[in-house]
Amino acid sequence: MDVRAAVAFEAGKPLSIETVQLEGPKAGEVLVELKATGVCHTDDYTLSGKDPEGLFPAILGHEGAGVVVDVGPGVTSVRRGDHVIPLYTPECRQCEYCLSRRTNLCQAIRQTQGQGLMPDGTSRFRLGKTPIHHYMGTSTFAQYTVLPEIAVAKIREDAPFEKVCYIGCGVTTGIGAVVYTAQVKPGSNVVVFGLGGIGLNVIQGARMVGANMIIGVDINPARRELATKLGMTHFVNPKEVGGDLVKYLVDLTKGGADYSFECIGNVQTMRQALECCHKGWGESIIIGVAAAGQEISTRPFQLVTGRVWKGSAFGGARGRTDVPRIVDWYMEGKIQIDPLITHTVPLENISQAFDMMHRGESIRSVVRY
Amino acid sequence: MDVRAAVAFEAGKPLSIETVQLEGPKAGEVLVELKATGVCHTDDYTLSGKDPEGLFPAILGHEGAGVVVDVGPGVTSVRRGDHVIPLYTPECRQCEYCLSRRTNLCQAIRQTQGQGLMPDGTSRFRLGKTPIHHYMGTSTFAQYTVLPEIAVAKIREDAPFEKVCYIGCGVTTGIGAVVYTAQVKPGSNVVVFGLGGIGLNVIQGARMVGANMIIGVDINPARRELATKLGMTHFVNPKEVGGDLVKYLVDLTKGGADYSFECIGNVQTMRQALECCHKGWGESIIIGVAAAGQEISTRPFQLVTGRVWKGSAFGGARGRTDVPRIVDWYMEGKIQIDPLITHTVPLENISQAFDMMHRGESIRSVVRY
Repeated sequence: MDVRAAVAFEAGKPLSIETVQLEGPKAGEVLVELKATGVCHTDDYTLSGKDPEGLFPAILGHEGAGVVVDVGPGVTSVRRGDHVIPLYTPECRQCEYCLSRRTNLCQAIRQTQGQGLMPDGTSRFRLGKTPIHHYMGTSTFAQYTVLPEIAVAKIREDAPFEKVCYIGCGVTTGIGAVVYTAQVKPGSNVVVFGLGGIGLNVIQGARMVGANMIIGVDINPARRELATKLGMTHFVNPKEVGGDLVKYLVDLTKGGADYSFECIGNVQTMRQALECCHKGWGESIIIGVAAAGQEISTRPFQLVTGRVWKGSAFGGARGRTDVPRIVDWYMEGKIQIDPLITHTVPLENISQAFDMMHRGESIRSVVRY
Repeated sequence: MDVRAAVAFEAGKPLSIETVQLEGPKAGEVLVELKATGVCHTDDYTLSGKDPEGLFPAILGHEGAGVVVDVGPGVTSVRRGDHVIPLYTPECRQCEYCLSRRTNLCQAIRQTQGQGLMPDGTSRFRLGKTPIHHYMGTSTFAQYTVLPEIAVAKIREDAPFEKVCYIGCGVTTGIGAVVYTAQVKPGSNVVVFGLGGIGLNVIQGARMVGANMIIGVDINPARRELATKLGMTHFVNPKEVGGDLVKYLVDLTKGGADYSFECIGNVQTMRQALECCHKGWGESIIIGVAAAGQEISTRPFQLVTGRVWKGSAFGGARGRTDVPRIVDWYMEGKIQIDPLITHTVPLENISQAFDMMHRGESIRSVVRY
């Protein structure tokens, strides 16, 4: 079938709106009509050419929501008409990782997904005779996409696509890091580095679970207002702190953070996030993605005296199990999404969404099909 | 009273056997007659002058066992005749740290302990008119020592002093890191870097809790035999592994260690210990003490893909609560100490114990009073 899509032909060039050909779903696969997709920093990172694993040509996008319109042979968990969120972290419930109960990093289709291909080793997209790579197993910058059955989360039908698409990445990454990875306890003091699309969701996740101090750290004072609405109790602008930021945060929390979250992807702030944690038990969770080749460092004494350094991918959430619950939390008013979606554009104007991200004007822009 | 003691007068010089004067216990303090003390790398580190917090003159030693012979006013938890192990990590059961339930790092007397003084800010030891510093709050290289009540663990009376003194540091540090810090689960694959006095105890701790593979990593092949007796299932000599040690360990464990322990104090092996952990859930525990100023590094991707980096001090054990249990484990035959104590010397020959440690001949030397 012919499908309208934004195609990334080469690194550093804007996306191009094209009509591409999409093959129908094979065994174990589903065809989804996307209704909305967010535009995330990770799409931009790959498009920029800085991602060493980036492949071109490709259809980017990994933060979508839509409706199942066809299923291949053997598909049992979803059917035509189901509302779904595509999952770049699938959940097969059968691999060593899913069965370990200790991680959400299902490995069932990891190898082909990393090659921009479906699990059978081929692509469903092409333009004329040229195959086009899938991206993160989702490729939501297309009106229709094909996904493995294990890579869609079935969600309730009353959830608005143009809001809950954000749960496909940013919301889950932030809230999940609080709820699933760190398992923040009520009354905890939390420090969040970076108040962008992830950090703001960490803030509201911390509020949801009853944190005490929720301290946001950002050099952009414009982020203060929205973060406060989402639950931030203290704003710290490193540019305004004279001297040592770590000491400032330790003093502010009377001993250090019980949990800190790095949502920037900067190895220096990752170190600060660890070192501002409370001696004896403070845990720091890295969410941000650092540039290729960058390394984190600290003195081992920081760990020997009780701090814990860990990371979180997709918020530690299991896609098919946890994502529908997060949709429920939104529908029940436990978390907010509407104020975070600052812009909505048609597919034709998707490059505007990238431009606004570069200029720091948007929290999240959503493409509506 | 007059007390025979090994005094460290200055960095880099051998200990000197002297008769020093010891003042009796003040309020909340106890006088302990030491029956035995181990000689540990940490004593050597301080004596060498490399420890930036080392103070001289001092009476070193922190791995003792003995009998309470007097108590100061207000002491309620121990009495004359009780058998005890001195604790360089006390347990007051009242400070923020003790009450957090998340750490063993009681802070009640930390400041004065770090200054080589009793909690009232003075020393009980002197030589003529010169005050001599306490060390790690214990100073077990003396026939008698004074300790705060919160810094002694009362143990059963049938336990032999010249064996269970080792529980005052090495045994608890190794076994505790397995049992309390990592909480290793039965069936886990464990990698231990460094088969010295700590690493061997990690090995037997892993065996006690039912680990599956227990892999010891050491460049000294002489350590293989004893480690095997204590539960090691695989020995890896990095000098014999062609190429990448991390890859070798990941392959050997079919995916990586569930838990790894660094018992050397080398920041390069700390990195290897983290990176040989299993994607998704492997946890690496730093036990070894690195030289001042040294830093650990890794790519944050290691953490974002699920590995956890933490540390352990005194095995995460609460001194008064957990140390008596570890003595029970020894008396019940769950753990071994006898084969680890390779040499016994009188106080007069304590320098021989340091010499054997330097030459790598001893696992643990014990001074018997």
